[in-house]
Amino acid sequence: MYRSHNCGELRISDIGKEVTLSGWVQKGRDLGGLTFVDVRDRYGITQLVFNMDENADLCSKARKLGREFVIQAHGIVRERSSKNNQRATGDIEIEVQTLDILNSALVPPFTIEDQTDGGDDLRMKYRYLDIRRTPVQSNLIFRSKLAIETRKYLDSQGFIEIETPFLIKSTPEGARDFVVPSRLNPHQFYALPQSPQTFKQILMVAGMDKYFQIVKCFRDEDLRADRQPEFTQIDCEMAFVHIEDILNTFEGLTKYLFKHTLNRELPDFPRMSYDDALKFYGSDKPDLRFDMKFIELNDLAKGHDFSVFDSAELIAGICVKGAAEKYSNKDLKDLTEWVQRPQIGAKGLVYVKYQEDGSIKSTIGKFYSDDVLKNWATSLGIEKGDMLLILSGEQEKTRKQLGELRLEMGRKEGLMVQGDFKPLWVIDFPLLEWDEESNRFFAMHHPFTSPKKEDIPKMMNGDHQTMKNLKADAYDLVINGVEIGGGSIRIHDRDLQSKNFDLLGFTKEEAEHQFGFLLGAFEYGAPPHGGIAFGFDRLCAVMNGQSSIRDFIAFPKNNQGRDMMIDAPSTIHASQLDELRLSLTYKDL
Amino acid sequence: MYRSHNCGELRISDIGKEVTLSGWVQKGRDLGGLTFVDVRDRYGITQLVFNMDENADLCSKARKLGREFVIQAHGIVRERSSKNNQRATGDIEIEVQTLDILNSALVPPFTIEDQTDGGDDLRMKYRYLDIRRTPVQSNLIFRSKLAIETRKYLDSQGFIEIETPFLIKSTPEGARDFVVPSRLNPHQFYALPQSPQTFKQILMVAGMDKYFQIVKCFRDEDLRADRQPEFTQIDCEMAFVHIEDILNTFEGLTKYLFKHTLNRELPDFPRMSYDDALKFYGSDKPDLRFDMKFIELNDLAKGHDFSVFDSAELIAGICVKGAAEKYSNKDLKDLTEWVQRPQIGAKGLVYVKYQEDGSIKSTIGKFYSDDVLKNWATSLGIEKGDMLLILSGEQEKTRKQLGELRLEMGRKEGLMVQGDFKPLWVIDFPLLEWDEESNRFFAMHHPFTSPKKEDIPKMMNGDHQTMKNLKADAYDLVINGVEIGGGSIRIHDRDLQSKNFDLLGFTKEEAEHQFGFLLGAFEYGAPPHGGIAFGFDRLCAVMNGQSSIRDFIAFPKNNQGRDMMIDAPSTIHASQLDELRLSLTYKDL
Repeated sequence: MYRSHNCGELRISDIGKEVTLSGWVQKGRDLGGLTFVDVRDRYGITQLVFNMDENADLCSKARKLGREFVIQAHGIVRERSSKNNQRATGDIEIEVQTLDILNSALVPPFTIEDQTDGGDDLRMKYRYLDIRRTPVQSNLIFRSKLAIETRKYLDSQGFIEIETPFLIKSTPEGARDFVVPSRLNPHQFYALPQSPQTFKQILMVAGMDKYFQIVKCFRDEDLRADRQPEFTQIDCEMAFVHIEDILNTFEGLTKYLFKHTLNRELPDFPRMSYDDALKFYGSDKPDLRFDMKFIELNDLAKGHDFSVFDSAELIAGICVKGAAEKYSNKDLKDLTEWVQRPQIGAKGLVYVKYQEDGSIKSTIGKFYSDDVLKNWATSLGIEKGDMLLILSGEQEKTRKQLGELRLEMGRKEGLMVQGDFKPLWVIDFPLLEWDEESNRFFAMHHPFTSPKKEDIPKMMNGDHQTMKNLKADAYDLVINGVEIGGGSIRIHDRDLQSKNFDLLGFTKEEAEHQFGFLLGAFEYGAPPHGGIAFGFDRLCAVMNGQSSIRDFIAFPKNNQGRDMMIDAPSTIHASQLDELRLSLTYKDL
Repeated sequence: MYRSHNCGELRISDIGKEVTLSGWVQKGRDLGGLTFVDVRDRYGITQLVFNMDENADLCSKARKLGREFVIQAHGIVRERSSKNNQRATGDIEIEVQTLDILNSALVPPFTIEDQTDGGDDLRMKYRYLDIRRTPVQSNLIFRSKLAIETRKYLDSQGFIEIETPFLIKSTPEGARDFVVPSRLNPHQFYALPQSPQTFKQILMVAGMDKYFQIVKCFRDEDLRADRQPEFTQIDCEMAFVHIEDILNTFEGLTKYLFKHTLNRELPDFPRMSYDDALKFYGSDKPDLRFDMKFIELNDLAKGHDFSVFDSAELIAGICVKGAAEKYSNKDLKDLTEWVQRPQIGAKGLVYVKYQEDGSIKSTIGKFYSDDVLKNWATSLGIEKGDMLLILSGEQEKTRKQLGELRLEMGRKEGLMVQGDFKPLWVIDFPLLEWDEESNRFFAMHHPFTSPKKEDIPKMMNGDHQTMKNLKADAYDLVINGVEIGGGSIRIHDRDLQSKNFDLLGFTKEEAEHQFGFLLGAFEYGAPPHGGIAFGFDRLCAVMNGQSSIRDFIAFPKNNQGRDMMIDAPSTIHASQLDELRLSLTYKDL
């Protein structure tokens, strides 16, 4: 037996017990005739004590222990003379009788502490040392707990977890697939799933009714910061449901998860149409931890001979409460430069400060008198001390820019409070998105999403302009400005699905080749169905108020898709390529 | 709302309720003025009734419904005049007021009944129809339940589920890897994991202590019947454990699963050494549902001038109880031919029948008198009515052949009772296996398995013959002759691991290239650890007394590794190959 207890569980009530602990040496201290060694495992840290006077050999052995040595110690629990109330085991220590070194350790390349001195690359290469650190360990334990609670809830609601295959078929629509050459079927390839989408729909046709799976998905994308080539989804589908059934079920799941992992009760989630989200927040994933809703100013601001506004499609602003006296000219110049950066792309920034003393300070005083601007304030509910920031231009762009500015002001004003959670359903997405560049429609959600029932006749018979305005039964769950989940009611009619493929530019042959099995399935009694998928890595991060998913993944890849620890990907043997009937080419390399 | 109840839940106590059901048409029957329609979902079947006299339009509509149409019916629950006690809902029916056809269906290519008329290929191609059948649906629901209970138990024991990566590094040792070309790292490849072995060991070095994962694994093998290129494991690892801790923990898991899915209490599992398993059952996975232990006859049978026996390394038999009068000469001739088939490979079969009347009938009467054979019977505990079947020859082969014969006799005698479960730990496996053909050692379990502690000095310093006799801390869980799980205590010392790689024929460079990260990890404080992996698909099958794993997998592949439904693998676009810097070759095609 390597241990009778772990390093986090002994208390004052255990005094006098004979115990055996195993773990890693956190650190040692020699104080005169006494040597103290902190031994650590994932449950905590316990202090071992050795006395040179009582057992010189043993104490000498303890003094030779290095950081991260793996040891086993046997001894008696006793009360500490100087207690450590920072630590659950801080009232006791172990008077050691025997000490075994189970394994030695080289000096680790960075400190195994909450705040480590290791850089990202080093931490990834020695991930086994990094994971010994409490913050990473806690994240992985949280993730495990979140998965368990997810399954508990969905099981209680009658969902069945069904594993769908990983070796499937490549479909060039959407993101790029990872492909897997088949040796038994030379020159043919499997693809790794970007999601189990078609399989979960097939399961609905198969009568499985309520399906879920916590499952790895794969996308061969050029990796941006915080994207991973493999990621995990909570993937769900239900048959015989309307949109309301799905929203309620998964709002229930989300509330349950917050309650059972963070002990937080969430109120009912508000719902907002996609159009309103853009109109009032300039984003389809608004952060509702703060208000700062867009104020449209076209009616008020036009016709005052200010050509910038007169020629703008949209003039809109945000009111920053209590900010009038806080932002200097220098601050506002910096803010103007910030909105003018190419990533934001605004032409300029107009401000109107309604000072505490009732006066107005503004960049547009030349065109608008103080009285006019005070009238704006009155009619818009802007109070003394507030500052109005205004952008103008082409509607879609201006909304996007103002959305970015709103977030920046939220950050500056400290309105994105850690531990505050503001979930939101965004609904009524457009079905199709027109891409000017490639002169074609793309599916806003995916090609299996159903238009709203009332839009189906328009879709089957409408003209090009009609198609742009079709609304889908699609929805996103957004928390604190992060898209956590998304889904839709699916098409379950062969003709409607064919029409959608047609609109998306598939030829009949392509549609048949790639999705013939699904079209076929729709002819054999497909029930109405819909579903949702949650980004599990991201849910973990958002629930913990962290912005990076990487530390919620045990072995993440870097931005080049590389596992730094095992050094993958790597070259393979020529014989492996031969067996697969493949050879390397050097075009453009 | 598509339904107020499912098709399996209405009872006599619901009479008078207004309900809405949705589901598939199982069948319809017209009886005079009445039409009955059975509507089915995964919860059950409910009878709908339509009356031509009361509502001719509605009844006509019902008469036009085809098999597998998806319908929604609204009506009143009423008591049936002729009840069906084969069905949970058999006391009631629904007097339908409105009927909606949600989707029509073509006539399915096979019947959606427990006993279907569909062949394997058809069932796989139309898997969505096949899964509508209760036996397949029950299997998938069982699988989901088994996964939930597995997680429940392991969670209760402090295990953390941690996801390990799917895009890892190819290691030519062991079975063949599926590889995944990397676009971002041209000419480099990921491999799909054959198991998370090295990652779970890394997690132990990382201090995670008790890990598990229910996880897909991949092997590119030539597919035998009932092998799948992707399969699921319950993968587990623990640190600071001896073999006893692991056997107890996972015996606990197994008992828990039988209790909580089948309501079966299993007694403590016996343990048998690998050597004994071969000696007494001719197999490292004996089926203990029946005894029929091998009887070694060298001492008794040699020296009677029967040259076949005299020249044999081993003479061994099995006693088939009460079989003496049951097997005719013809039967025994057939049995002899059976053991002589190339798959078994015995030269011949000797029998000794101890007849009910006390006489002896035997093929070796020429060499052994009745008295001699009766003495055998007495000393071996063979009783009147029993039959002794004997094989002889080279020891290892004879044991294997007799093992097959034992199973065949178990089948013939009806001793492999459905619903009887006989688990067994097989322990003390050899560490290495010498392969004459390739003139090298292979790891009996895998290259990370530790020799028994007392064998470590022998391994570090012994000669070739010593290596053949090293025993490992490895173990298999066998139920009813099927290997359900296997594992070992791992090496956690760099030098010992290097020695093992060396014995297995790795050069220093190969070992470093493939497993450098693990060898490195062993230098930074690796704790003693060990683990086990269960074949999840097989566990499902064995617990249900079924021999094929295929019907416990929602979307299995056929023997060519092909998904018949989606038709994968398939060709990919030339542009995809270009992006991956790969081209097809035609050598040997």
